[in-house]
Amino acid sequence: MRILSGIQPSGALHIGNYLGAIQQYIALQDGNEAFYFVADYHALTSVRDAGKLRQYVFDVMVDMLSLGLDPEKAVLFVQSDVPETVELAWLLSTVTPMGWLEKCVSYKDKVQQGLPAEHGLFAYPVLQAADILLYDADLVPVGQDQKQHLEITRDVAERFNNVYGGKKGVFRLPKPYILDNVAVIPGLDGRKMSKSYNNTIEIFDEPAVIRKKVKRFVTDSTPVEAPKNPDTCPLFGLFKLFAKPDDLAEVERRYREGGIGYGEVKTRLGEALVERFAEPRERRAEWVAHPDRVAKVRAAGAEKARATARTILEKARAACGVG
Amino acid sequence: MRILSGIQPSGALHIGNYLGAIQQYIALQDGNEAFYFVADYHALTSVRDAGKLRQYVFDVMVDMLSLGLDPEKAVLFVQSDVPETVELAWLLSTVTPMGWLEKCVSYKDKVQQGLPAEHGLFAYPVLQAADILLYDADLVPVGQDQKQHLEITRDVAERFNNVYGGKKGVFRLPKPYILDNVAVIPGLDGRKMSKSYNNTIEIFDEPAVIRKKVKRFVTDSTPVEAPKNPDTCPLFGLFKLFAKPDDLAEVERRYREGGIGYGEVKTRLGEALVERFAEPRERRAEWVAHPDRVAKVRAAGAEKARATARTILEKARAACGVG
Repeated sequence: MRILSGIQPSGALHIGNYLGAIQQYIALQDGNEAFYFVADYHALTSVRDAGKLRQYVFDVMVDMLSLGLDPEKAVLFVQSDVPETVELAWLLSTVTPMGWLEKCVSYKDKVQQGLPAEHGLFAYPVLQAADILLYDADLVPVGQDQKQHLEITRDVAERFNNVYGGKKGVFRLPKPYILDNVAVIPGLDGRKMSKSYNNTIEIFDEPAVIRKKVKRFVTDSTPVEAPKNPDTCPLFGLFKLFAKPDDLAEVERRYREGGIGYGEVKTRLGEALVERFAEPRERRAEWVAHPDRVAKVRAAGAEKARATARTILEKARAACGVG
Repeated sequence: MRILSGIQPSGALHIGNYLGAIQQYIALQDGNEAFYFVADYHALTSVRDAGKLRQYVFDVMVDMLSLGLDPEKAVLFVQSDVPETVELAWLLSTVTPMGWLEKCVSYKDKVQQGLPAEHGLFAYPVLQAADILLYDADLVPVGQDQKQHLEITRDVAERFNNVYGGKKGVFRLPKPYILDNVAVIPGLDGRKMSKSYNNTIEIFDEPAVIRKKVKRFVTDSTPVEAPKNPDTCPLFGLFKLFAKPDDLAEVERRYREGGIGYGEVKTRLGEALVERFAEPRERRAEWVAHPDRVAKVRAAGAEKARATARTILEKARAACGVG
């Protein structure tokens, strides 16, 4: 299967990103042809500082590599290294009814959250369609919140095929691969972990910072000796995702029996997180110390991605008579 | 001065296009750095047939060359040979408020005229801004109907400069060069000559077709012997634009005195048109017989245009931190 997915470079990745997306990208790179990209064209709709954007792009590349995405297995690239993307987006634009974009909830949501109502934000789903169609992707891992955009991608592809495709069609229609768990990773305040709630734990914070941040986890006032329900406790919910089986069993038993305080759970969660990302943290320090190696991976990924992209773009150009 | 203008390939050029635009492009190619392009990305919003679009693009190239645009003086190129255009359009999109596009009358007009309400049509002014800004144009020859789009180009350029430009700015702000006569070239029914009124005379129709078409010119029923007012007669209005001075003086005198019939004026107009475009018609036959020469001009134009475009695009990419 051909898999495609993008990560927006808008700051340090948090453990919600890891469990919700990257861990699954890593699983999918085996036995599939996976394309993963850093979506910097998209990030322009929110990041308006060249230095910051460059740093974020570098950070995401390094994070992907450190966490286990393997350039020998998957094509790792940066969106703007493949300008074919925006060219395809224009071709798609000319067959995309305004109504399809006007009904997109994510545009309205983002504007309500305070992003400026720019045309780039409105046109986002068309660029996303180009991202996907340019690589003949079969499967696109998405969270629930991105399902509508993938439907638009399918609709746009179908429309282009109908208008220009002849009998064979130009584009393959991708299917969504709905990511597990996206909704259920609790943040420090108990709500879904999300940068917009400011309740995240960053994967590559220093161990001391992680331990300290975890201490801020919001809990109720049940006393140490009282029994607690692990199934409804967000702190336990997060601990469960990172604890070793033995630890998990012990803590769960003591929750139900009483006799464990939240402070202890926080400490153990901090340790579990630090341990879980210890190896990636070491690898990351290596990559950061050798930006030339990162640049090499980036260039190689761009070359592979462009080779595929050019083939599809040429098909699309020929189909509509451009060039 | 750096001049830039585009012609949409949407069928054969008529004499309104010639007087309203091309004749002035020819004048401007001397003493300026002129860039003239065939706007095929734009044409996708109305032409949805690959074969037709390719033919139209070839036709406009050949028409430009035959009428006197000189690839030694001006850069003649096809828009889609410079994909940098769409990349810049995306960068501009991210700083273009939706409100600026929503207020564009030309989108609403075109939808009312029956073009499908696609996103490409809506986003047209952003692509147009990219067309212009990509070549650091000082002056853009436009008809009155395009003035609003050029204002948007200036606004977008200013916005990008403010957001990203630092002290020097990235883009030069272009000025409009309002084309003369655009509104006053009468078509066969006396209204402004325009393809949408179906009242055009095509420059490169066969002489017999031109003579015959001119006969269809709508006139009133004033008898031959009666005096007529040349200042209010659309047929005379068109004749005036193509007649030799002696002929013009004679016909004008006989209008005022009476004694000339519309049939005679039509015949003389037909002859004047055939004569005026006789040389271009011969040159055109030469170009059409040698499509390889047209391809060569196109390739050379693309190379020159891309060299300029890349410089500006790289400045814009660097300014916002992409690539």
